[in-house]
Amino acid sequence: MIGDGMGITQITAGMYSNGNRLYLEEFPIVGLHKPYSSSNLITDSAAGATAFASGVKTYNGAIGVSPDTSAARTILEEAEEQGLATGLLATSTIVHATPAAFIAHTSSRNNMEDIAKSFLETEIDLFIGGGKKYFTERKDGRNLLEELKQKGYYVSDYSEEGVTELVMDYSKNLAYLTDRTDPKPQSKGRDFLRPAAMAATYFLDNRSPDKGFFLMIEGAQIDWGGHANSSNYIISEMIDFDETIGAVLDFAKEDGETLIIVTADHETGGFAINPGSTMEKIKPGFTTDYHTGTLIPVFAYGPGSSLFSGIYENTAIYQKMKTAFGFTDQ
Amino acid sequence: MIGDGMGITQITAGMYSNGNRLYLEEFPIVGLHKPYSSSNLITDSAAGATAFASGVKTYNGAIGVSPDTSAARTILEEAEEQGLATGLLATSTIVHATPAAFIAHTSSRNNMEDIAKSFLETEIDLFIGGGKKYFTERKDGRNLLEELKQKGYYVSDYSEEGVTELVMDYSKNLAYLTDRTDPKPQSKGRDFLRPAAMAATYFLDNRSPDKGFFLMIEGAQIDWGGHANSSNYIISEMIDFDETIGAVLDFAKEDGETLIIVTADHETGGFAINPGSTMEKIKPGFTTDYHTGTLIPVFAYGPGSSLFSGIYENTAIYQKMKTAFGFTDQ
Repeated sequence: MIGDGMGITQITAGMYSNGNRLYLEEFPIVGLHKPYSSSNLITDSAAGATAFASGVKTYNGAIGVSPDTSAARTILEEAEEQGLATGLLATSTIVHATPAAFIAHTSSRNNMEDIAKSFLETEIDLFIGGGKKYFTERKDGRNLLEELKQKGYYVSDYSEEGVTELVMDYSKNLAYLTDRTDPKPQSKGRDFLRPAAMAATYFLDNRSPDKGFFLMIEGAQIDWGGHANSSNYIISEMIDFDETIGAVLDFAKEDGETLIIVTADHETGGFAINPGSTMEKIKPGFTTDYHTGTLIPVFAYGPGSSLFSGIYENTAIYQKMKTAFGFTDQ
Repeated sequence: MIGDGMGITQITAGMYSNGNRLYLEEFPIVGLHKPYSSSNLITDSAAGATAFASGVKTYNGAIGVSPDTSAARTILEEAEEQGLATGLLATSTIVHATPAAFIAHTSSRNNMEDIAKSFLETEIDLFIGGGKKYFTERKDGRNLLEELKQKGYYVSDYSEEGVTELVMDYSKNLAYLTDRTDPKPQSKGRDFLRPAAMAATYFLDNRSPDKGFFLMIEGAQIDWGGHANSSNYIISEMIDFDETIGAVLDFAKEDGETLIIVTADHETGGFAINPGSTMEKIKPGFTTDYHTGTLIPVFAYGPGSSLFSGIYENTAIYQKMKTAFGFTDQ
């Protein structure tokens, strides 16, 4: 689970604003990762997600490719090959940098119509997020949602039904687009992350009861709150993400076989809880409207969680996930 | 070991500026503590150190006392009672808030001449730090260093010999004052922290080979770099503190029975590694010249280290130390 732009202060502000508690406190293991990219001490989400997904330090903007732009195999692709069920869920468009780096291989995060095509080139079991237009209003005239239907997917979107109305058919892959473009902020009525995470978790567990599953869930707009230097935006998104963590934690506690990893790609805003703050009202400070270079916390729960203790490179998260899954290098 | 004002960005900047490595990376266990005090979401060093030393959330400025100003027994006092050797070492005056809260009980951190008297009211085996004047140039006319000598201490200071020239007499307690007032910054020639930490560790180990020891080592001036909004000051103090951690780590690795805990009381400066930074040259941002309220990392190595994983209140560090020592509540 990736809270985009979720540095330690974003977590702290969310915790204090939520009555001094977060579901994250139930995670027994804490680690710290070094978020820098191959091109810059301050990473972007594309290089950050590629580090997690493929274990390579690459340049800012790169989606699932090494510095020489060659494709880097992702943990999602490996999970598919091993017969696990796979999924992506985000509160951005589903072709945005973070989810994209788990499924696509392209030189730039801006190639969003190309990234959308990648969803047809895999056997991903489930994806839920915004950005319908990248599938249906394309320069090449293709309707990728029609093509997904022909491929056997259950395809639906915001114009047809809400996430909570979805009747899950475990016999088919599922594609659901929450919005034409970006999903709204939580504060403006977006309410799908937690229910979609619960639905996705049970769906993937049923798709692959024996071999298990890989699911990446992104709370994308913590980052957008940082870019806007808005502590209210950060905090509402942080709490929404944490409630989603709580729902997934409930599943993992019951299941007993699920490892949950929660981290961020980078911090956004140089966000600080300044003097004059109270638990009820944070007085924020910011140093930038872009990202910063500070170490990023990692939280782990479940089998294999102890692998995620200590300080390590962001790329080590990929290796640790492989070890936890029991995947071997080929 | 307490790096005053050592938030996650202070650690990160020190690490990058030190060739992307710190001894802290050798700590297998990471935790996060909530640093707020009873009076303020933004703690000061006095309340922060009292939380670690005595397990009570108290008001900013309080030294070893509860919110009602009653004395709160400290882990150092408990260690003494249990027959362990005890010590304090700081790069501030030894009567400054952080070391003071482990040995003194007074309503305000400003009562520095009172705090100095506390060193006579205990059987502390060793203390090293600045602030000779609080012992010898006092309103009450007492010369506390003479009194310590009469009590059987080996007493020395900067005017007589350097730290590295000290010939350790394990049969006597030791008091050494590094400066009349505050020690210099590391960048201006202060070089005693690492050698004093090594000397103190071996000294206390020899003073109590069977029962063990409690030693608090403070890197005080990381905080002062934050107050000055000077990344160079922060970074040089951070690296000096980390080299000291490395020396203590060497002892603990060889000894096999020593638990090391490294943390901070709070973050200072709202320090951020801003866009434009490289590993060689940090471009800093700051949001304040005071402290901030963000969660603070905890690192642990050795027997009992796993107690320090997860997220908890700063006061829990006291309880966890007691558990690790095997002290029971009386």
